[in-house]
Amino acid sequence: MNSSEWFTEQAASTGTAFSLKITKKLHEEQSDFQHLEIYETETFGNLMIIDGCTMVSTRDNFFYHEMMSHPALFLHSNPKRVWIIGGGDCGTLREVLKHKGVEQAVQIDIDERVTRLAEIYFSELCESNDDPRADLKFIDGIKWVKDAAPNSVDLIIVDSTDPIGPAEGLFGEEFYRDCIACLSENGLLVQQSESALLHLNLIIEMRDAMKNAGFPHQQTLFFPQCLYPSGWWSATIASKAELAFRANDCANKDFETTYYNVDIHNAAMAQPEFFKKAFA
Amino acid sequence: MNSSEWFTEQAASTGTAFSLKITKKLHEEQSDFQHLEIYETETFGNLMIIDGCTMVSTRDNFFYHEMMSHPALFLHSNPKRVWIIGGGDCGTLREVLKHKGVEQAVQIDIDERVTRLAEIYFSELCESNDDPRADLKFIDGIKWVKDAAPNSVDLIIVDSTDPIGPAEGLFGEEFYRDCIACLSENGLLVQQSESALLHLNLIIEMRDAMKNAGFPHQQTLFFPQCLYPSGWWSATIASKAELAFRANDCANKDFETTYYNVDIHNAAMAQPEFFKKAFA
Repeated sequence: MNSSEWFTEQAASTGTAFSLKITKKLHEEQSDFQHLEIYETETFGNLMIIDGCTMVSTRDNFFYHEMMSHPALFLHSNPKRVWIIGGGDCGTLREVLKHKGVEQAVQIDIDERVTRLAEIYFSELCESNDDPRADLKFIDGIKWVKDAAPNSVDLIIVDSTDPIGPAEGLFGEEFYRDCIACLSENGLLVQQSESALLHLNLIIEMRDAMKNAGFPHQQTLFFPQCLYPSGWWSATIASKAELAFRANDCANKDFETTYYNVDIHNAAMAQPEFFKKAFA
Repeated sequence: MNSSEWFTEQAASTGTAFSLKITKKLHEEQSDFQHLEIYETETFGNLMIIDGCTMVSTRDNFFYHEMMSHPALFLHSNPKRVWIIGGGDCGTLREVLKHKGVEQAVQIDIDERVTRLAEIYFSELCESNDDPRADLKFIDGIKWVKDAAPNSVDLIIVDSTDPIGPAEGLFGEEFYRDCIACLSENGLLVQQSESALLHLNLIIEMRDAMKNAGFPHQQTLFFPQCLYPSGWWSATIASKAELAFRANDCANKDFETTYYNVDIHNAAMAQPEFFKKAFA
């Protein structure tokens, strides 16, 4: 399916594939952890591929990065300390740092090469990397969480690749127990959770694992993401306390977004009928 | 991009392509109007292709058919007479007829072969074709609307192919004027309006044409649709009266849906930030 003109991601287990027309290969390397490719596309700007999977494009990353950050930040009463596990393209970090109340944002991605390439090919996503509140670490996020002290973080954002390869350990009960141990009293976790159309069982297993680990509340959010299988993506929140949306703060936010706003926040929380039944 | 194993729709002008893994070609013909193909896929059930574009699959058509019908039906105070322009696969007709208050549902698709093939390969979508309230006509929908008497319909659903080929005339001011002329006092029109990510200008032009034709109110709805370009689709409503959602009727509906419910209705109405700005 890959020709000189198109890059195709075959999500083989789902029987679907998505392609973007490419005009140039900009870079290719094997890092210590993953195979990385950067293309210039005809209509989506630059495109990063990790291990054959589309990760981020210039044109449509705003859906994912905004929805991985702002809903969770506005669902916490006062998030000051944020960790991003994964997120090496720095787009989630940029969104998190738009919140002036955030005092510290630590990005922990095992693969420094992802960030170095993002700085070149997705420089707009990296524009807050020099913010004094930002701390970029290139180490194992699973170990980072395991070794953390109690009450050391308010919000953990798991912005990872699919649950195979380096990210597999981020989707299990043991990791969630470690998150609970280091989260503050009203702390919460938000994690990308694939497509509810194609990977419903994964979301069911994740939420079970979150519950078994001791998170009393789970909430899945839905949003478009053209680049990912089915074009419809999700994030799942696990929280220690009941979620309460700071709608006034959101309505009066002092920063720009492209997709997210108060109505979109509420829309993302709406549970499709088949999804409700799967959890009934 | 088409191989013996995958069917690929290249939405060439958007620089994107979507593919489904196929296991068998079930049918192919040139009707009087269009080129029709039916495939069996590995994970999406059966798949209908019209003029090279993916139209409907067994697995994911519920998003589209539910969102083309129920929001508009619950936004009208008492819809009794419904016309479906296009919709030859009969999936929208089936959803419309779930509403007991609907007394007459006329489906007007120019290509009878689409319906005859749907009866064979998507029989579940055709299960209400024998309902005494259903009337299937295989004639030109544009002419049907032009020739209609005043106050002869409460809701017009335009469930058409893309605005090229036979469907082109359904996306213009003249057609919308003809709709206004035959709609009842509180009547409304709902029309598939492509992807807000890929075809924003089309939606802007449609809404301008609706307004210029004399519809005082427009509202665009958003929903996932894996099979269509970007995986994120829209429908645009034009109405004579202000829209008022019959939320109680929706909450107490006496039929099953797979995606749609009260929360999803409200979610679909949420306007993304970039979309609001485009219409500001």
